[in-house]
Amino acid sequence: MTDSSVPSSPDVPVSLDDIRRAGEAIHGSLERTPLTLSRTLSEITGATVHLKFENLQYTGSFKGRGARHRLLTVAPGHGVVAMSAGNHAQGVAHHGALLGLPTTIVMPENTPFVKVARTRDLGAEVVLAGADVEEAAVRAHELADERGLEFIHPFDDPAVIAGQGTVGLEMLEQEPALDMIVTAVGGGGLAAGLAVAASGHDRPVEIVGVQTERYPSMADELAGRASTARAGSTVADGIAVTEPGRLTSTILAEHGVDVLVVPEAAIEQAIAMLLEIEKTVVEGAGAAGLAALMTYPDRFAGKRVGLVLSGGNIDPRTLSVVTLRGLAVAGRLNRLRVELDDVPGRLALVADLIAREAANVVEVDHDGLGSTGARSTVLELRIDTLDAEHAERVLEAILAEGLRAELVDW
Amino acid sequence: MTDSSVPSSPDVPVSLDDIRRAGEAIHGSLERTPLTLSRTLSEITGATVHLKFENLQYTGSFKGRGARHRLLTVAPGHGVVAMSAGNHAQGVAHHGALLGLPTTIVMPENTPFVKVARTRDLGAEVVLAGADVEEAAVRAHELADERGLEFIHPFDDPAVIAGQGTVGLEMLEQEPALDMIVTAVGGGGLAAGLAVAASGHDRPVEIVGVQTERYPSMADELAGRASTARAGSTVADGIAVTEPGRLTSTILAEHGVDVLVVPEAAIEQAIAMLLEIEKTVVEGAGAAGLAALMTYPDRFAGKRVGLVLSGGNIDPRTLSVVTLRGLAVAGRLNRLRVELDDVPGRLALVADLIAREAANVVEVDHDGLGSTGARSTVLELRIDTLDAEHAERVLEAILAEGLRAELVDW
Repeated sequence: MTDSSVPSSPDVPVSLDDIRRAGEAIHGSLERTPLTLSRTLSEITGATVHLKFENLQYTGSFKGRGARHRLLTVAPGHGVVAMSAGNHAQGVAHHGALLGLPTTIVMPENTPFVKVARTRDLGAEVVLAGADVEEAAVRAHELADERGLEFIHPFDDPAVIAGQGTVGLEMLEQEPALDMIVTAVGGGGLAAGLAVAASGHDRPVEIVGVQTERYPSMADELAGRASTARAGSTVADGIAVTEPGRLTSTILAEHGVDVLVVPEAAIEQAIAMLLEIEKTVVEGAGAAGLAALMTYPDRFAGKRVGLVLSGGNIDPRTLSVVTLRGLAVAGRLNRLRVELDDVPGRLALVADLIAREAANVVEVDHDGLGSTGARSTVLELRIDTLDAEHAERVLEAILAEGLRAELVDW
Repeated sequence: MTDSSVPSSPDVPVSLDDIRRAGEAIHGSLERTPLTLSRTLSEITGATVHLKFENLQYTGSFKGRGARHRLLTVAPGHGVVAMSAGNHAQGVAHHGALLGLPTTIVMPENTPFVKVARTRDLGAEVVLAGADVEEAAVRAHELADERGLEFIHPFDDPAVIAGQGTVGLEMLEQEPALDMIVTAVGGGGLAAGLAVAASGHDRPVEIVGVQTERYPSMADELAGRASTARAGSTVADGIAVTEPGRLTSTILAEHGVDVLVVPEAAIEQAIAMLLEIEKTVVEGAGAAGLAALMTYPDRFAGKRVGLVLSGGNIDPRTLSVVTLRGLAVAGRLNRLRVELDDVPGRLALVADLIAREAANVVEVDHDGLGSTGARSTVLELRIDTLDAEHAERVLEAILAEGLRAELVDW
């Protein structure tokens, strides 16, 4: 038990001292994750890029920090309930189990079972309820009332924000010269904690938040716009929040935190880059910071930037698809369609032309019906190339033989 | 320049002091990579598993250690040549450039262009020659003679072995209580260096080598068998070596290093596990150690084991395929074939049955010709499930409706 979640004053819901005390309170129970300079990403982006590997926390994200710190304020043995389909669920379940607190997690009915299973494995009772997170949250509050459980909010809670802020204290200890810290924003708990943590540093550190174009709820809030967030899928499901926190948005506004909005495609590309260059697995939210550097390079050029790789809990199949799409976007995986007359040897000819250009065929679809005439067929190939220009050279070699062919957009 | 590669005595081609001096010589030019305890892999394997993240070196593998140490023995400005289609090439190219030594790398003609491009980007002249590594090596030696270049062997060289041995010194400093260090073996340079490094420790540390079933050349050599290594593809291309080193095999024999042989499927599974659990990207060789722990659990149970994640240079497409195959092996991605009578509503019925069992359809192939009769068609679906048992429940639900269906092996 600790009283570190008690606000220092009514006007300052989360103070720098709160975060320092949170750091002491959770010390030893969470990883002090590495902050490392990426030479390659620095060359690519024009900023000096330091990566904070919160994806290497035991539950795969920073969320355990806030969860544990908040759970330390709960009376021993008292049950808690939370609503989350993701990282908050794992953080609460794991640290609840370590602290001996019975945990109930309400997840929407359509939650992928891998997430359900993982949360159960960590020791929580999982209740599936509601068609979406809003309905699940209603059920979680009902359960809190019915069973006398304490509700653990994923972000709009001073103790949670103070816990997340420990990421910022660590980063500024590890690299005191940072000019900026960039992080994904969902509800805003981590960004708010970072803003408060950075406010005590001996030189100015700008906090920049990043949201996906599909859920720009905090950007809208800070701009005084009506929310343009829409339901729907995003590769950054960890920050698919339609209503930002009241406390968090107040803190972000007070500290002048800027929230940038990035396209889904940039997030996917950032996931693929971190995988290939840094050999590290991040989920969509964890890649949002790099996506912002790629999307708005002028905003960061020449600055010492700390990027929070906030989590690594991405479904392996999603990761696989993102990787392939990343190759496609980079022009390294191409769809080549060739029309073949129905005479022997045409397939061999095409295969030989591709081989001579040193491209690699990885998939062939030869569809006798999807053609332009009864005497010709369409061959669709997926080919590995060095880049888009290399793919064009392959195409030209085929066209030079008088065949009809094209590179098809993905 | 350093003389640390000079053997201490003719009988001891690489001594512990050589490795200590190598550590001093390359200090600051290579990462001191983290060694971290994996709680989850420890639970799964029954050993206490510590991971050494050599995949996080700048060129993506440990190979820069030996390359740099060897290059320090070359006269300033003198050109060097190496043969490698992989990590040795990158290590020599990068450290050659840093040291101001012109580097020429001979690669087999069929080397993937991504590797060629990366090696060129690091500053080397790349010469494509030969149908395989043996022919490329012949060309490299010819170039050494023709152009007066110094040949940098990938493993069978005392200075290279001493450089690789620094991995072992670091691991035993980081975790002095290790009982074993497990590493992939290709030519044997790293394993030999580890064996010598461990020999100076204040308690016994067993070194265990691991090879793929397709290239068990060192295991054969140490057992006095004729080589059973065969040409052909392996996911662990970094250890696809048909002839182990003479010096390295002598050192491994002297130190009683055991070399285990693991199936390709175990290596693929280990890659997928490291990706999903540890959020880290390893190439096949880098996953071989974990594959050994999964294949021979009794050999490691209860021991404190250091696993060298030796490299992370895996082609993104290969990684994507391995990830999907990993899900298939784990029963989480399934092929379900259903025979549909040619009447309206059958597809909707199947989709509904799957949804009711909370499985997720990720791909559908509905082929009107691949059927058993003109009045029925075959529907093939790929479905995500929690595990193989869950897939069986989906199948049973479909069979219970009187449809003909089966789960198809991959």
